[in-house]
Parts: sequence; C-alpha cells; structure tokens
Amino acid sequence: MHNPGRHNAITDVAGVKVGHVTLFVGENVRTGVTAIIPRDDIWSKRAFGAAYVINGNGEATGLAWVNESGLVESPIMLTNTLSVGAVHDGVVRYMIKRYPRSHIVLPIVAECYDGGLNDISGLHVTAEHAIEAIESAAGGPVLQGCVGAGTGMRSYGFKAGIGTASRILNVADQTYTLGVLVNANGGRRHQLRVNGVPIGEEITDLRPERHRDGSFIIIVATDAPLVHRQLSKIAQRATHGLARTGTPSTMSSGEFVVAFSTANTVPSSSETSLLSVNMLRNNRIDVFYEAVIEATEEAVINSMTMAVTTVGRNGNVVHAIPLDRLCELMKKYNRHTQDEGRSTPH
Amino acid sequence: MHNPGRHNAITDVAGVKVGHVTLFVGENVRTGVTAIIPRDDIWSKRAFGAAYVINGNGEATGLAWVNESGLVESPIMLTNTLSVGAVHDGVVRYMIKRYPRSHIVLPIVAECYDGGLNDISGLHVTAEHAIEAIESAAGGPVLQGCVGAGTGMRSYGFKAGIGTASRILNVADQTYTLGVLVNANGGRRHQLRVNGVPIGEEITDLRPERHRDGSFIIIVATDAPLVHRQLSKIAQRATHGLARTGTPSTMSSGEFVVAFSTANTVPSSSETSLLSVNMLRNNRIDVFYEAVIEATEEAVINSMTMAVTTVGRNGNVVHAIPLDRLCELMKKYNRHTQDEGRSTPH
Amino acid sequence: MHNPGRHNAITDVAGVKVGHVTLFVGENVRTGVTAIIPRDDIWSKRAFGAAYVINGNGEATGLAWVNESGLVESPIMLTNTLSVGAVHDGVVRYMIKRYPRSHIVLPIVAECYDGGLNDISGLHVTAEHAIEAIESAAGGPVLQGCVGAGTGMRSYGFKAGIGTASRILNVADQTYTLGVLVNANGGRRHQLRVNGVPIGEEITDLRPERHRDGSFIIIVATDAPLVHRQLSKIAQRATHGLARTGTPSTMSSGEFVVAFSTANTVPSSSETSLLSVNMLRNNRIDVFYEAVIEATEEAVINSMTMAVTTVGRNGNVVHAIPLDRLCELMKKYNRHTQDEGRSTPH
Amino acid sequence: MHNPGRHNAITDVAGVKVGHVTLFVGENVRTGVTAIIPRDDIWSKRAFGAAYVINGNGEATGLAWVNESGLVESPIMLTNTLSVGAVHDGVVRYMIKRYPRSHIVLPIVAECYDGGLNDISGLHVTAEHAIEAIESAAGGPVLQGCVGAGTGMRSYGFKAGIGTASRILNVADQTYTLGVLVNANGGRRHQLRVNGVPIGEEITDLRPERHRDGSFIIIVATDAPLVHRQLSKIAQRATHGLARTGTPSTMSSGEFVVAFSTANTVPSSSETSLLSVNMLRNNRIDVFYEAVIEATEEAVINSMTMAVTTVGRNGNVVHAIPLDRLCELMKKYNRHTQDEGRSTPH
Repeated sequence: MHNPGRHNAITDVAGVKVGHVTLFVGENVRTGVTAIIPRDDIWSKRAFGAAYVINGNGEATGLAWVNESGLVESPIMLTNTLSVGAVHDGVVRYMIKRYPRSHIVLPIVAECYDGGLNDISGLHVTAEHAIEAIESAAGGPVLQGCVGAGTGMRSYGFKAGIGTASRILNVADQTYTLGVLVNANGGRRHQLRVNGVPIGEEITDLRPERHRDGSFIIIVATDAPLVHRQLSKIAQRATHGLARTGTPSTMSSGEFVVAFSTANTVPSSSETSLLSVNMLRNNRIDVFYEAVIEATEEAVINSMTMAVTTVGRNGNVVHAIPLDRLCELMKKYNRHTQDEGRSTPH
Repeated sequence: MHNPGRHNAITDVAGVKVGHVTLFVGENVRTGVTAIIPRDDIWSKRAFGAAYVINGNGEATGLAWVNESGLVESPIMLTNTLSVGAVHDGVVRYMIKRYPRSHIVLPIVAECYDGGLNDISGLHVTAEHAIEAIESAAGGPVLQGCVGAGTGMRSYGFKAGIGTASRILNVADQTYTLGVLVNANGGRRHQLRVNGVPIGEEITDLRPERHRDGSFIIIVATDAPLVHRQLSKIAQRATHGLARTGTPSTMSSGEFVVAFSTANTVPSSSETSLLSVNMLRNNRIDVFYEAVIEATEEAVINSMTMAVTTVGRNGNVVHAIPLDRLCELMKKYNRHTQDEGRSTPH
Repeated sequence: MHNPGRHNAITDVAGVKVGHVTLFVGENVRTGVTAIIPRDDIWSKRAFGAAYVINGNGEATGLAWVNESGLVESPIMLTNTLSVGAVHDGVVRYMIKRYPRSHIVLPIVAECYDGGLNDISGLHVTAEHAIEAIESAAGGPVLQGCVGAGTGMRSYGFKAGIGTASRILNVADQTYTLGVLVNANGGRRHQLRVNGVPIGEEITDLRPERHRDGSFIIIVATDAPLVHRQLSKIAQRATHGLARTGTPSTMSSGEFVVAFSTANTVPSSSETSLLSVNMLRNNRIDVFYEAVIEATEEAVINSMTMAVTTVGRNGNVVHAIPLDRLCELMKKYNRHTQDEGRSTPH
Repeated sequence: MHNPGRHNAITDVAGVKVGHVTLFVGENVRTGVTAIIPRDDIWSKRAFGAAYVINGNGEATGLAWVNESGLVESPIMLTNTLSVGAVHDGVVRYMIKRYPRSHIVLPIVAECYDGGLNDISGLHVTAEHAIEAIESAAGGPVLQGCVGAGTGMRSYGFKAGIGTASRILNVADQTYTLGVLVNANGGRRHQLRVNGVPIGEEITDLRPERHRDGSFIIIVATDAPLVHRQLSKIAQRATHGLARTGTPSTMSSGEFVVAFSTANTVPSSSETSLLSVNMLRNNRIDVFYEAVIEATEEAVINSMTMAVTTVGRNGNVVHAIPLDRLCELMKKYNRHTQDEGRSTPH
C-alpha cells in the first residue's frame, strides 16, 4: 500500500481543480455536473493524456481526439446520461467566450445514468450549469458522495457518486503524486467487496426497490512524466481497481477512463516544431499501476462511505452504506477499516 | 467495378432513409443537420453495426456503444463541430417523446468543421433542427452537395458536403446492396485524384483564401447478412476509398465510419435470450470490401460534383469544381467521366 | 459464486482436451509443452474465438488471425519463451502431416519465461514435443501445477504453473459450462490475495532467491453460443480475475487471453456461403463475465496449491505455497478454504 | 511528391541495414529470409517503434511487445508462412550467442505464403538461414524483387517480392528521411493500379495458373524524432499506399506494418530512470503521412518491376510484369513512368 496525499484527492496533483454544481431541487431533481480541470489554461498548456474504455455502454465524448493527439486540452466534465448535449454545449460556449479565436474544441463529457433518483427526462442540467462547474473549480479538499454529477448516483445498491483518493510515490529519488476521481454508479449488491471482505454478501438489506446497473467514470491525474502510451496502460489498470470492489464490469456499464499527466506541457501555439519531453522509463511504471489500482478501489469505496441516504424521484430511496455495520464487518474479517476512515478529515 | 443501385445512393439499401435540414440564412449561416435512419423504428428493431476511426481529430458520439453492443439502435446524425451538443440534445428529446419508457439513449452525432463559410460560433443549429431532420427523412433519391450538414463543407479546396453512392453485389446467387453516404470536408487541393487522375495538380486556381483541413464522416449501409466483426472491417476499408481520392488522412482530420447491416433484426425487448443470426462466411467478404471502397471514393467525388459555388461568412467564397474542366482533364488522362456523370439524373 | 463443473477443469466443456509433455530432466531442465484442443478435428470444425492482450510483454502467435477471422482453427499451445519457434514448427509439422492439402496454418503458441528453474537457453523443447502434447491430449481431469508448460513456472514467489477451473451456468433454462486453464508465472509475493485475504503480506518467507516477474497465459472455453465480439469481452474479463489474485499486471508480464466457444461450428470447406449462427443476446452475458472472473481467479490459485516445491537450474529452489499455513490464514480472516480444497479430488 | 533518397531504399535512413538469404535450389525451392536491422546493436540501443495490423490473415510475431513497450529492440525478419518457427528459433539462437545474459527476446518474424512457386511444406528455411540473413545485413543499395523472403512471392498475378523506396522531407529547417521495405505478395490482377493507371485491367494475360491471394508485409524506418503514438499512425497510413496500388486488402491477406524511428535511443540498461525524448509536434506529421503513402505505393510497384519471371514448384510460372507494355500504358494514360524507372540504377 502506498500512502495517500494530503487531501487523499485528485487535487493532490498540483494544479488540478474540481468544481461541482449540485442540482438537488424539490422532490425529483437529483443530478448535477462535475468539472475536473487538469491545470489552469489547459487549452494553451496541454497535458499528455490517454483514454481507455473498459466497457462501452455509455458515452464519453472527446476520447477519439485524446487518443489521436495524446493530449488533454479541455476540462473533463461529468454529468447524467441525457445531459451530455447540454454540458457539451456549455463547454463550447465557455471556450468560445474565453478563447474567441479557438473555434474548434472537442469537449470531454462523460455520463452515468441517475434516472433512479433523478427526473432525468426532465433535462434539468443546462449549458450554464456546465460553465458554472468549470468556473467554480478549485484545488484542495474535494467534496465527495452526493455532489455534482454524483448527486443521483448509486453503486452496489448503496448511495454513491463522487469519490476520490490519491497516492504518493517515490521513484528514483523523485516524489510523484497520482490521484483518481470517480463517478461511481455501478455494481450489484452481492458483488461488493471492501478490501477483500464480502460486504455485499453480508449486508443484504437496505436495497433500492428496483435495480438498474450503471456505470463508472474514472479520471486519473499524475504529475509524473509519463507519455500517452504509458498513460493509456495506467488508465487500463483502473480495471483492476474496479475489479477489487467486486464488479465484473457488467454489460450495462459504461466504464471510461481518462488519464493525464501535468509533467510536460505542450503549448497550443505552433511556433515550436520540436518538443523535448521528459519520460519515465517503462521499467519504473509498476508502482503507478499499483497506485492507480489502489486509488481507484478506494475512490469507489469513498464515494459510498461519503454519501448519505437520499430520497428522490417518485419517493425512491437509496440508502447510504451503514458505516457502523461496515466497521463491524471489517473487524469480523480481521481487516482494518482504513478505507472508509481515510476520508473522514474532509 | 460493381454496378450502382437505382439511385446510386445509400437509400438503395431498402429501408434506409435520409433527412436534411439546411440552414442557409443571410450572409453568414451556412450549416445544417443530416439524419440517416437505418430503418423504421430502429430503436425496437436494432441492426448489427460497427464503428471505425481512421483519424480521431473530431467527434462522433455513441461509437463506444456501437462497438460494445455490435448494434446500431438510433438515427445517425451529422452536423457541424460546435453543434454536437445541440443535435445530441435533439436526439434525446426525440427519443424521450417517441419512446417515453426508454430513458437511455446514446445518440450517434458526428461533426465536421464548417467555420470557413459558416458563422459556427453563432451556434445556429438547435435541438429542433435535429428532430426535424429525423422526422423528414425519406427513401429514394438523396440530395447531395450543399445540403444538410454539408451546407458549409469543402474538400480539396472545392465546395463539397454530402455525397452518396451505392453498389449492387451478387454473392452466392443472392443480390445485395451496399450504400455509402459521406459528409466530405477534408483534403488539400494538390492531393485530389479522380479515378486515378491528378486533378488537384491540374486545377490549381479557384482556391479558397484560407485553407483549413477538415474531416470526412462516412456512413455505410448494407442489406447483406454481416455481423459486427465483418462490418468493422468493411468500415475500415472506407480508408482505401478515401485514399484513392488523394487524402493522406491528415492529422487535422476527423475520419469516422459507421457501418450497419439491415439483414438481421435484434429486438429491443428482452423476451428472447437466444438469437438465430444469418451471417455470410468470411470468404465471401472481399466483394464488400471492393464495394465500400468504390462507393466511398465515388461518394466523395459526388459531394463535389453536386455542389455549387458558395459565398458565406465574411464574404468567403468556396468554388465548385468546374465540371467542364474536370471532363477535359479526364479525357486528357484517357479516363471516362463516369464518376461525376453517374449522379446527374438526380 | 457459481458452481464448478465435474472436474473443475477446462475439460468440463465437452470436447475440450488437454495434453502435457513435461521435461523434468537432470538438474537443469524444468520445462515442457501444454496443448489445448478446442475439439476434435478443429481444423475442419472451427470454433468462434477471440483473443485479448492485457499486457503485451510476451508472445502469443496466431492472435491476429483469431481476431481477424473470429475463429480458432488449431490447437492452442503453451511453452517457454525461447521455445516458441520449436513449438510453432511442431504445430506446422503436425498439420502438414494430418492435413496434407492445408498448407496454411497460423499456429497459436503462447509463452512464459521459466529461466529461473529451467535452462531455458538450452532450448530443450523440440517440435516433436509439441506434436506429442497434441497427440496425447485427452478429456477428463487435468493435471495441474508442475506439469507441461507449467513445469518451471512460478507465481507470487511460489511454485505455480498449470491451473484450471470451471463454472456451470444456467441461462434461460439452458445449462452452459465455462472453463479456464492458465499457465501462471506472474505476480510478486506481497501482492498475493486468496479470495480477498492478503496471503502475500502474511507469508513473507519461502521466497526464491531472485525475483523475476513473469506472465499469465489464460485460455477460456465455453459451450455457450457466443460470437467473436462477446468472446472478446469475456477474454477481457479475465483481467478482473487476475486482479483479484493481487497482480497489477506488471510491465514485465505477458498476459494473453484466448477464448473460444464450441457451440457453433464453422466448416473449413467453403461449400456453404451463408451460416446460421446461434447467439446469446448481450443482456445474458453478465453471468459469463462472473464465471470467467471466478474461474480465472481460482485457476491461478489452483496452479499454486497443486504445485510442489521444485529444485532446478543452478540449484535454484521455488517453494510450494504451504497449504497448512494457507488454511490457517484463511481461517484467521474468517474465510472458507474452498479455493484450494476444490481441486483435491483430482 | 517528395524526393527519394540516395538509394531510394529503406537503407537511406542512416544505420538501417538489410540482409537477404535466397533459397533458389533445384526446381522446387523458391524461398528465403530477409532481415532488417534498425541499427547496430539494436538490443542495447532500442528505437521507438509501433506496429499496425491492416488485415490479420497472417503472422507477425513480436508485435504485442512492440506496441506495449513502444520499442523495437531486435532485428525484423521476413520469411514464408511455414518457416516462422525456424526463423524465430534462429533469432533466439543469434541473440543467446551475441547477448549471453539476455535470455528474453521476443523476435519479430513476419510471413507471406510462397507455396505457389515454393515447396513450402518442405520447410527448407532453417534457423541458420535466419542467422545468416542477420549477419550479412548491410547498408547501401537493396536488392529487390526475387530475393530473400521475396524469392517466391507474387502480387497482382505478377512476380513480386522485396521492394523498397524512400523519401526526403524538410520539416522546420531539418531534413529527415523515411524509408519503406515491403514483401509484396497480395492483390488480384484486375485491381492493379500504377500511379492511378488501371494496368491490371489492361494487361490481362500473363497470369499464373492458379490464383491464391496473399499478404503484404511493410517495414517503415525514419530518422525523424517521432514517438510510438505517431509511428503507430504512420504505420496505419501504409494502408493508403497499398490502397493506391489497387488492393482492397482482401480477407486472405496478412497486412502487418512495423514502423520505427532511429532518432531517439533507449538504452537496454536500466541505470537511468528518466529519459529526455525529442519529439516532433503533431502538426508537423502530415508530410510523414504523405511520405509513407508514396514510399509504400512505390515499394510495391518496385517489387514487381525489379522481379523476373520465375519457374518453380511443379513447373508453375509466375511472369514478371512486362516493362515495355507498362511503359506504353503509362503513356497511353498520359503518365510519366517514374515509378518503375526510379529503381533502375540499382
């Protein structure tokens, strides 16, 4: 196990910011938008990036360009399934306003389905909400659970949503940080494992009335000098982290990973034609694989332990995972309760 | 060379419909939406499908799900780069209205950049335009050139836009049809080849003032019983067709291909669990490779020969390819002018 | 948890055969060949298949053709890294002899590195050994551990090699079997988890003198009517099974998966041009994901619990996992010892 | 059109060497081995590399590792379909001898089927032939046509085999070279186009008695500072070059591309952990796309124009393309005969 960073959050990677707009209105609106900003002025100071699809039952726009260019050059947006258009439109409007001469932007917008708790067909998310999420993004501690795009989400039959975690790594006398942020909305109850303990087999009550399996969106940030190909494999390794929480990545799940590194900067201007790029050697990459697996696993668990029981559309209830029972079960299986404890300072 | 179908259009595949909404307004609006409907009630009667990315500098939403499911289950929409959100939103609204119980739709929306002729930042395309394109779709002859999503597009420094072509194939005593529709917006003048003739090296005038290289979106339809894997390779072969028109698939091009087959039907209802699928054997597939290459090449050329000189944003002019000079040059190189002639009956 | 089949082996899928040639000679030769035969006369009765690469530091020949054709049409061979050529040659010779008119065969040969225990540079495996493995293949119980290609392998710092497991599934009133066979040669001690229990953190002694991380080869068989695309995703899900045993799929690991289904038969003769294929719908596939994950996890553990301490090249020793301590630790963490117990009847 | 290099060969990229072993023995043996050495001591001085599969009906070992590592670290070997094992074994033996401590090598061996002219089932290629091809490799002019692995090959119904071409590029005040070497063994007569001219429709005689469509192997070298992702896309663009020669990349073709750049050097020793890598920006890559397309097209044509009529197994005859008729036809279509002329100085 590697150590978490100061906030145990994706924002432990210097310069990364997160912004939430939470729509919790009346009895039926439980949705929102979350923006991850890789660094200030990312359009002019592009970051190496890569995308990976674990299972494709969902949408994440912009990924073809991430993998073609090897770059991330815009905010990364999370929202609900039917609001991809509105958020896409919001990013376009934000970019047109901020960079009037840059007419071509290919926004990254990834969705999960929150129609259990949210009146998703009401299309309550607007372009303005997307802009607000971008403009309100900040570093430091990250709100988790029922917030932003996670407001109406659930995992393993418990209330879930946004979760985050980070790891500090020492490689060849250098210290690097890797952070993960997830929007967790997948998995069936019986599958849930917390640090290897079969919690889902033990807690069989507190289920939602109707099950509909959903998606996991995973964003990975690091300040280590890694290039597209390496980030692509780090993104893939989020699979292992998800697997440890129990999900088999069901057919109905949209599992998209975007990973970026802030170590190198590629300017948007085309004045230079040759870049000098720092790059860790392949034989140093294993600790990053371990880190992304640990942080993904923990971020998913954090998305549940930081969430609260939520009542939404048509009075549907999704329960929070009961922390006292979770602690008891971890003891029963002789496991420390580090995972859910780690986030309590926030 | 295989023979074209009745209309030499993607609609020669029975059941396929095409709808255009053209926004040619005032001096600056030159854009639109084109909808391709694989068959009526495609949501309930899904078609095997596959997507392929030749070059990823662009957006085509919904493709992860096409490749995960092996199916196409919604209209395929074409528009400009900054209107992806609006058209996505339009498809969502259309589907919510038409299928009130089906809340999860992952629209297919592919874009090209028309900012040379069009006030693209004005965001003139709305969700309603997308719905109108879907609802107005029809079989039969297909309008080409400066129409729908092709209104503001250009290729090889000439006015271009929507082009289509089809081929009739005889395989093991059966007759099949394969049709292609493109939104052509890429290629530099000097690269243009028409049936092997270096037209772009010969016609060096009539250039737009500023060059900005763009994209090609390619939709392939067939009634042959082919499955996802086979359609994926047919989609890839559109590369060869593009290559023959001269483009090297430049870095700045978004080249996305979606292919579908109407031969098998997969119901949206989950009542049955086992499907009986017809599938041509792999050793019968070469003629489909030839057909998609021919039809893609011709559809790109048709998109130019069917277009007209257009004045747009800031008085920018994009010239139509001069048909008389094209014919002369084809003769100079001892080639028949079949490509541009074929579409004239429309 | 799904139930295992009769032998808890890949041979529980009717018609699948496994053959081992074990080279345990003198002090330095600890290697061999394992052949998996999808069904009798697989060349004439091809099976749908797919291949997936989790991590590419290794070799598995023949996979481009598996994914291009969607078929498996030859035996699947396992051996050591430097004997890929010899085994490839052996399959070619076998096929030339058996099918004199079929000159084009693209053998599937996958390797792991056994140079810790084996004089790998001595190139002790010959083409004849490969032929012998094919010809000796049989159904029924499968020898595990230090046998065939697994003779010199190790995982998680313990002796390992060949492991297998199977699962029985009921889908829509039909019973299907899915079986997995692995050649396990990867993972570092501290990473090892058995059914969620951190065995690798608990048993820190009994390590080999020098660590060299290696590979996992995974073969998946099923009699369920699944097509290439579906088998491709099932192959990918082996990732989750590996992940649960603890490995982060290190950079130095070659992790290749080949999956096939015996439900449909594609004749090699080209007399027919149209196939009628049975295919389970996508919404029935989740249990196969669960099954391949469970069976992969268990096959890796079985490869260790069925192995014995081995002395090899230069007197190097690789210890078997101590079963008594394993059982104690499973109890300490309140876990049943089902994984290692399941294989004892063999 | 970009200009060719001094020898119009892959060896125009400084340091690249090519070696042939030609087996033209008696009446039935028409085969061989070709080795491409990216640079001296490539094992210790690795080159960035990438592999791409256009169509997978064939074998090219080692590609999973090329794409995982982003490196080429061994000779690239070409031979016939059934001799992959022997050549693989030869590379292993060569590496064991030359680098006694480096026991893990994953050879790159790509095949085409020469069973029309060659007694392929006789397995006449040995490990020693592979070693000889490596050890005899040299820079300077490259023998083309019926030589090395190309001895028994044919394309478009004409005798073909090894072909090569190169292009010189000026990018941002720097001069770079890109070279291509092909083993050409695919395409049907009626498809053949030379610089856009339908030669295959014009020359309908001189056909082999039996047609069997085969493969194209394409090796791309450059001294431009390009990384794995960029080389991957350059490899893909070989598709366009093949397409221009007429082939639709038939189902029965194995079309594998390996591209490498000698600009950066990655040492095999793991002493350093951080590399400083030179990398051209993405917006400078289009000329390399053009160059690889031109050089691939020309290399395929050169493989034919440099070949001679060959009699082989069972008296089978494959005719050389008649150069006088080719020249006449190029004039008929008003085309210069630059393609076949360019190689004549060799």
